[in-house]
Amino acid sequence: MTLKQALHSKIDRKTKPPGSLGKLETLALQIGLVQQSLTPELCAPALLVYAADHGLSREPVSAFPREVTAAMVLNFLAGGAAINVFTRLNGMDLRIHDVGVDADLPPHPLLIPAKVARGTENLLHGAAMSAAQRQTCLTQSAAHIDTAAQTGCNVIGFGEMGIGNTSSASLIMHAVTREPLETCVGAGTGLQGQALDQKRALLHRAVERHGLPSSPEAILQAYGGFEIAHIAGGMAAAARRNMLVLVDGFIATAAYAVALKMEPALSRNAVFCHCSDEQGHRRFLEHLNASPLLDLGLRLGEGTGCALALPLLHAATAFLNDMASFDDAAVPTK
Amino acid sequence: MTLKQALHSKIDRKTKPPGSLGKLETLALQIGLVQQSLTPELCAPALLVYAADHGLSREPVSAFPREVTAAMVLNFLAGGAAINVFTRLNGMDLRIHDVGVDADLPPHPLLIPAKVARGTENLLHGAAMSAAQRQTCLTQSAAHIDTAAQTGCNVIGFGEMGIGNTSSASLIMHAVTREPLETCVGAGTGLQGQALDQKRALLHRAVERHGLPSSPEAILQAYGGFEIAHIAGGMAAAARRNMLVLVDGFIATAAYAVALKMEPALSRNAVFCHCSDEQGHRRFLEHLNASPLLDLGLRLGEGTGCALALPLLHAATAFLNDMASFDDAAVPTK
Repeated sequence: MTLKQALHSKIDRKTKPPGSLGKLETLALQIGLVQQSLTPELCAPALLVYAADHGLSREPVSAFPREVTAAMVLNFLAGGAAINVFTRLNGMDLRIHDVGVDADLPPHPLLIPAKVARGTENLLHGAAMSAAQRQTCLTQSAAHIDTAAQTGCNVIGFGEMGIGNTSSASLIMHAVTREPLETCVGAGTGLQGQALDQKRALLHRAVERHGLPSSPEAILQAYGGFEIAHIAGGMAAAARRNMLVLVDGFIATAAYAVALKMEPALSRNAVFCHCSDEQGHRRFLEHLNASPLLDLGLRLGEGTGCALALPLLHAATAFLNDMASFDDAAVPTK
Repeated sequence: MTLKQALHSKIDRKTKPPGSLGKLETLALQIGLVQQSLTPELCAPALLVYAADHGLSREPVSAFPREVTAAMVLNFLAGGAAINVFTRLNGMDLRIHDVGVDADLPPHPLLIPAKVARGTENLLHGAAMSAAQRQTCLTQSAAHIDTAAQTGCNVIGFGEMGIGNTSSASLIMHAVTREPLETCVGAGTGLQGQALDQKRALLHRAVERHGLPSSPEAILQAYGGFEIAHIAGGMAAAARRNMLVLVDGFIATAAYAVALKMEPALSRNAVFCHCSDEQGHRRFLEHLNASPLLDLGLRLGEGTGCALALPLLHAATAFLNDMASFDDAAVPTK
């Protein structure tokens, strides 16, 4: 009997109608297969947040000014953001990485300084980042995964902060899925009407300039940003370490799509945490054959969907490990 | 400024784009309004499971034999069922009530003995329960809510165990919503093909006999069961105590629909935890204008959806209480 058959059998012999735990059964099977174990365990869950500015945020692509990136990093360090609240609540270790914020940030125990530059270049006028910068992103995030692995972490989520980064994610979705750009572009932090039309027009100009690159290297260099490149590299590195990889919303999914081109084995380790309210995310998930755990109309980023979904991963491993079987409990079947 | 306005304002001033926490924002607003507080708290969460047998389970309406009800109660007492695992994991106090199991159950610290009879009558041949039995159910469950309230509990979920009880729930849904019986009848613990056709045919006979009663009393007496009547009474009593009421899957929703007729204020306090995979539940929820938190393809009952959704209620109160505001964090806005 293969491990997969043994896991199926273990799940089906639990004291419940077959299949009645729905997606939790699929999740328990996946976790068991990733860990190659009939008794998998989630250890030292961590959430890595990457923050960086975007050259494009000098254009009118966001409802919030560029300065919000740095201000939100300070909010993370002070413990006041949504991701602080949700990681505290659900027991995840939170680390904040400055990989390109356009401000001098003070030293802080939670902050890992790793600035590539003070923001990417404006992608309307050239590449968002150089090949060397892209490589720095991948090397750095692989080292962050090494650090997490040293704590025993085997389940890791990724969050982002960067005013303007739904634009990069939309361009990446367009390049990866070849869906019409209109499908890929949404309100971000809350654009409406003319402001949203303006964002779409700017992104059309970006596509005219860069086309639809297909290699992960070319996609990251054309469309950025530094935080997305770190997340892509971190996801690929986490998969190589055989961690479970929690995929958050629209921007994290764009990073995932790039990471998958670098490390196809990532798909076995990825858990899609939620479907965002950002336009394009549902279609993007369908394109990836992903069936996310939550659908709560979130569109905040920061990795909040990962932190909110973690209790469901705990539920999946707990039922697999702790529920009685029909034999244990002497419950009659048909 | 009303409390509702104050809650909206507090939610909108948190350091996130307006509306970006989706359903968690709606939930935080609801919890604040129920508790009449800008800083609501969830205290001593409890899950009450009601178990009872059904006269109808002497007919072929389930994939599992009638004896499974008693065997599963013993499994609850031994700590091996899904609801044990999920309530332990998410910090809910679990109490098991025997309100009509067709077996002598041993005394146990977790078990509250409150047997109305050894199962309801077969509803194909008469009323499932008498008026006096129905009243006993409502009186007993109100007392159970009093007990929970004494622990400081202000958030309570309800679970059920009773082979045959999707049949009662389908008949209640049919009576309440007037949807075609075919829409209301599903696979339960796993009926397929001819067996499912047979269940439908039996329920048609039940409707021919009892028609479509509309008062909560008449619905419970015609279609039972004892566990559903206890849950309906418990939900109404919990709403009168101003607890948050967690609504589980198809059977709990049928109990809710009856409870709502007894206590219309319940709708303000109810949190719909998940959409079940049982046919009819999605339509039933639409009929009630309910937008559940989870959609995981569960169809297990026992209150498992309540236990799995509780972390989202904690997340809603935590962001409302603990996130910084734009003013606190000096984050620039538009």
